[in-house]
Amino acid sequence: MLKKLLIVVVEPDPARAELIAEGLTHSGDHDVRIIAEQSSLSRQVAELRPDVVLIDIANPSRDVLEELALASGPADRPVAMFVDRSDEQMTRSAIEAGISAYVVAGLQPDRIKPIMDAAVARFHILQQLRAELAATRAALEERKIVDRAKAILMKARGIDEAEAYGLLRKTAMDQGKRIGDIAQQLVTAAGLLGG
Amino acid sequence: MLKKLLIVVVEPDPARAELIAEGLTHSGDHDVRIIAEQSSLSRQVAELRPDVVLIDIANPSRDVLEELALASGPADRPVAMFVDRSDEQMTRSAIEAGISAYVVAGLQPDRIKPIMDAAVARFHILQQLRAELAATRAALEERKIVDRAKAILMKARGIDEAEAYGLLRKTAMDQGKRIGDIAQQLVTAAGLLGG
Repeated sequence: MLKKLLIVVVEPDPARAELIAEGLTHSGDHDVRIIAEQSSLSRQVAELRPDVVLIDIANPSRDVLEELALASGPADRPVAMFVDRSDEQMTRSAIEAGISAYVVAGLQPDRIKPIMDAAVARFHILQQLRAELAATRAALEERKIVDRAKAILMKARGIDEAEAYGLLRKTAMDQGKRIGDIAQQLVTAAGLLGG
Repeated sequence: MLKKLLIVVVEPDPARAELIAEGLTHSGDHDVRIIAEQSSLSRQVAELRPDVVLIDIANPSRDVLEELALASGPADRPVAMFVDRSDEQMTRSAIEAGISAYVVAGLQPDRIKPIMDAAVARFHILQQLRAELAATRAALEERKIVDRAKAILMKARGIDEAEAYGLLRKTAMDQGKRIGDIAQQLVTAAGLLGG
């Protein structure tokens, strides 16, 4: 069974809020919350932890656009934004701020569902890429740290690489920690000791 | 000065092609090529190397959608796709195929420019993330290979890690190659020799 989505709609205009809610109602079984007060968006999003945020700002300035984008947490959930007009610079700012769907002059009830679908799919692709990048970077950093720790041990104890690695691994196992953490402690300590 | 964009529009229907060309003409100074014959898309895209591809398919099947997405080379350039109807599965397929903008029931001349801007911005963000991921992966792989090559040299010659690394580096410089390449050759050779 699919989990019911919690959708937060940021919309100060009641008539447009109605339009969006209508589009969402036809598209499936969702919980929809309307937030009329943009200034409390960040707090409300933090409390509600919605699955998707839809923001409608008829005539945004770049500052307002960036503020709302930031407040809606686009790194943590798909955010779709509807505006009535835009220029190239504003569109680029919105996308770079992490908005998953940026829709100009396209607020129609029957278009909301596919836009939300696209925003969700796109968010997951980016999320996956970012997670892979973070994991690969962490692996590379750990490898560098372990290398430095091994070199420190080899020099200090006159042992070879395999013995140095074995020592790191044994210490990590004894302390219930990761080899990378032990290596980092050693590198830090050696730095402090001027080693 | 900005480079003039070459935009390929894939559109079998002359009336709709006119609509799209109109939207593009109002939005700036572009070269626009209309491709009416979808079956030759892959070849034409390879020849023309456009900056952006816009595909309009009124009523796509999932097979046609994926075929056109693939043929337009979405990993190499922003691709925007306009369809008249879609469902969640098709939308997800299009986004996962790498389509930068997927627009349902939104083919209006004045909306084409912001959609293209968003597609371009989004493509560049993904491109950058992918490039970072590829570079980080390559760095990690190289580090692993260099580690293995050092271990092989240390064992074979009875030298320490610094000497092994120095030997790899000297060989790379003498041959005008990268250390990673020399390390890879050594690891491969040692494998062949059963070392």
